[in-house]
Amino acid sequence: MTKGAIVSRAEDFPRWYQEVIAGAELADNGPASGTMVIRPWGYGIWELMQAELDRRIKEAGAENAYFPLFIPEAFLKLEAEHVEGFAPELAVVTYGGGKELDEPLVLRPTSETVINHFFSKWVQSHRDLPLLINQWANVVRWELRPRLFLRTREFLWQEGHTAHATESDARAYALRILNHVYRSTMYDVLSMPVLTGHKTARERFAGANRTWTCEGMMGDGKALQMGTSHELGQNFARPFDITFSNASGTLEHVWQTSWGVSTRLVGGLIMGHGDDFGLRLPPALAPAQVVVLLVKDAPEVRTAADALVAELRAAGQRVRLDDRTDTGFGRRSVDWELKGVPVRVEVGPRDLAEGNVTVVTRHTRRKDNVALRAVAGTVAGVLDCAGDDLLAEATAAREARTVDAGSLAEAIEAASVGFARVRLGALGPDGEDRLAEHAISVRCLQRPDGSLAEQGDAEGDLVAVVGRSY
Amino acid sequence: MTKGAIVSRAEDFPRWYQEVIAGAELADNGPASGTMVIRPWGYGIWELMQAELDRRIKEAGAENAYFPLFIPEAFLKLEAEHVEGFAPELAVVTYGGGKELDEPLVLRPTSETVINHFFSKWVQSHRDLPLLINQWANVVRWELRPRLFLRTREFLWQEGHTAHATESDARAYALRILNHVYRSTMYDVLSMPVLTGHKTARERFAGANRTWTCEGMMGDGKALQMGTSHELGQNFARPFDITFSNASGTLEHVWQTSWGVSTRLVGGLIMGHGDDFGLRLPPALAPAQVVVLLVKDAPEVRTAADALVAELRAAGQRVRLDDRTDTGFGRRSVDWELKGVPVRVEVGPRDLAEGNVTVVTRHTRRKDNVALRAVAGTVAGVLDCAGDDLLAEATAAREARTVDAGSLAEAIEAASVGFARVRLGALGPDGEDRLAEHAISVRCLQRPDGSLAEQGDAEGDLVAVVGRSY
Repeated sequence: MTKGAIVSRAEDFPRWYQEVIAGAELADNGPASGTMVIRPWGYGIWELMQAELDRRIKEAGAENAYFPLFIPEAFLKLEAEHVEGFAPELAVVTYGGGKELDEPLVLRPTSETVINHFFSKWVQSHRDLPLLINQWANVVRWELRPRLFLRTREFLWQEGHTAHATESDARAYALRILNHVYRSTMYDVLSMPVLTGHKTARERFAGANRTWTCEGMMGDGKALQMGTSHELGQNFARPFDITFSNASGTLEHVWQTSWGVSTRLVGGLIMGHGDDFGLRLPPALAPAQVVVLLVKDAPEVRTAADALVAELRAAGQRVRLDDRTDTGFGRRSVDWELKGVPVRVEVGPRDLAEGNVTVVTRHTRRKDNVALRAVAGTVAGVLDCAGDDLLAEATAAREARTVDAGSLAEAIEAASVGFARVRLGALGPDGEDRLAEHAISVRCLQRPDGSLAEQGDAEGDLVAVVGRSY
Repeated sequence: MTKGAIVSRAEDFPRWYQEVIAGAELADNGPASGTMVIRPWGYGIWELMQAELDRRIKEAGAENAYFPLFIPEAFLKLEAEHVEGFAPELAVVTYGGGKELDEPLVLRPTSETVINHFFSKWVQSHRDLPLLINQWANVVRWELRPRLFLRTREFLWQEGHTAHATESDARAYALRILNHVYRSTMYDVLSMPVLTGHKTARERFAGANRTWTCEGMMGDGKALQMGTSHELGQNFARPFDITFSNASGTLEHVWQTSWGVSTRLVGGLIMGHGDDFGLRLPPALAPAQVVVLLVKDAPEVRTAADALVAELRAAGQRVRLDDRTDTGFGRRSVDWELKGVPVRVEVGPRDLAEGNVTVVTRHTRRKDNVALRAVAGTVAGVLDCAGDDLLAEATAAREARTVDAGSLAEAIEAASVGFARVRLGALGPDGEDRLAEHAISVRCLQRPDGSLAEQGDAEGDLVAVVGRSY
């Protein structure tokens, strides 16, 4: 197998990332600076992620809705930390229908403000709680150093917004989303062994009391924040006046959460599993799980390929037939490898004369000569284990690149190639500033055993996972 | 059954429409003028429409992708008719990240320009054709008289964009979408008997050679354009330089189509099927197909209701339990009627003592006393026929309000309460101007038998369906 015409990860990881995105036809830069076109292969991956997330979100009781892109400027200013956090990233519409607008409209960077405006109308009584809303939408943040899938000026995401009667209900729901929607999707669908924990005050969402996060390790040892779930306390309930009459008729402010994941997940998938030959997709996220390639066009080859496609489709797999034999077989094979299709079934006249085809497993690059009647079983076997294999490989890679550090200096050294775990107390009061000088940050705080902190845990005894981040 | 607290359609149709939207919790006005919040019940209907459309679009071979919201102003200007058509409706971003932008960015009113910019890169050879792309997205048009679901400054839609090697391939695809995606969804899913035909030059899409349309009749006899499929010829291919090398190696411009339907379909559904008690949903589009209501809370009532919910869910139906017995039964009953849930199963102690419940069919308002063991069969029967019944009723209403007219004057009179069918030749050369004076327009052109015109048909012999429109 000739190697795909992409640079190796070791040589130049950022360039490798760009070349995989271009070569696998995942995305393109849009004509307006910092924007992105998500091409069908990239969008197909996103659609599969969306379906898995959406199912879990609905299982958690939230309903989908849609709120406007346009937010009056005044709304953004109601929560002080929130506006401070987002002001530098806003895009503003000043003309509409050929006229200058009386009030400029901000394009939503996130929808806390507009959604909470409506929550204040919709919530009256404790019987209206919990109110659990999600939306799938595009959002706009004027990023200065855009990067496809990771930071683009417009991106696609879901954002959940909820209101609860008590602080503990809100906390429980934020954690339910973290664990049963985000962590579950990342482990079971993306095959990515994310670490979960909460952010330090410096890193948390503008307007949150606590931000829970999923942090993945990329192929270069850097961290990617892949999803966050925020406890907002009553920070928005007060300025937006979201109150309910409790069982005894007294008015109280609600307790809230918000949470989101975005097309950034596609970037995480690329950098989490890709190898020097391109993307490697877990079968759950592969727009095509199997591609059946005609090595050459010949009647018996086509007949055998068609029969295999029909057999594999009947088994419920997403299968494509590649019969573009006017393009060289080697070129097509490399292209499907770049795109990360989990299994290739190569049907050629020579193998076929002996009743065989070649089955190539993408994540191991193993090739097997397989009898026609055994193909379905072999393919099913690969699709069954590929996700678990990728998860195990990523877990081993993360563990190999994670060091327990006893001091700030040790943490800084370790974080140059991966993650360091260090007691927060050992970082000292200016620890985060010192880390920042080396472009390192605290990705999340956990208990020493890796579990989530609970109320009452002494912050200084928690372990900070530190690393460089995207 | 007390009547819902909404005005009757006969008394004030526009107010009825607003009251259904508010009462059924379908949508709200957004804080920025002309924008819309789609609430969970409205969004649930849209999600079901989306799924049906998306499946058909994929069956037609198109793949989903996503293109940027932001379009450089210069792009819009490349196709003359297109910019002329959309210029008055554009919204413009002039600030980003706290700075004035060097080039203002237009928010997409539709994506022909940005998508064709990429088609010119992606299409090289006849082997790249047809290129069939769809996107689900929000678009922005600065409407002067906004109306929820019908005309809002931001709306949700899908827009398909395709490129083909020949004019006839493009025409065939535009018609495939019209018939097998749009008309099929409207008849079989929305239960709406839309008329199909093509637009006059005056009414067609800015940049199209021919616009095919689906036109529905609303409850007040007015027309709603519910979906369009355009033959773009080479109008975009030339300015955007989209060429391919044909089989003999010569460069040719591609032939194109574009097509879209939007959240306007929800407005059409409301106005097409609603009655004086609110919305009536075809089961295929009902977020809840059945609601099981506890008339009063009592142990045996709850046990029976839970068992029915389980039984109906096991039969594959979308079922909600309404056990909010601290709200009056009458109020809840009226609310579910307003929301258009196809079947209500009312479980109360008195009926239950005799082993019965009450099954209420929304679209007929028929009430049946049904033995517990027969409920599943009765409900399945209603869900089976409700869509067909609604389609038959809407078809009969449309026919009753459609008149064959022999002259412009007759057409104008008939169109004050419904549709008139008149030979285009009989309208005269200034016919459309004269109709416009009465706020009437040609909704579509058809052959006299209602079928689509073909190449070579004499335009003057076609029948114009004229009416007032939304």
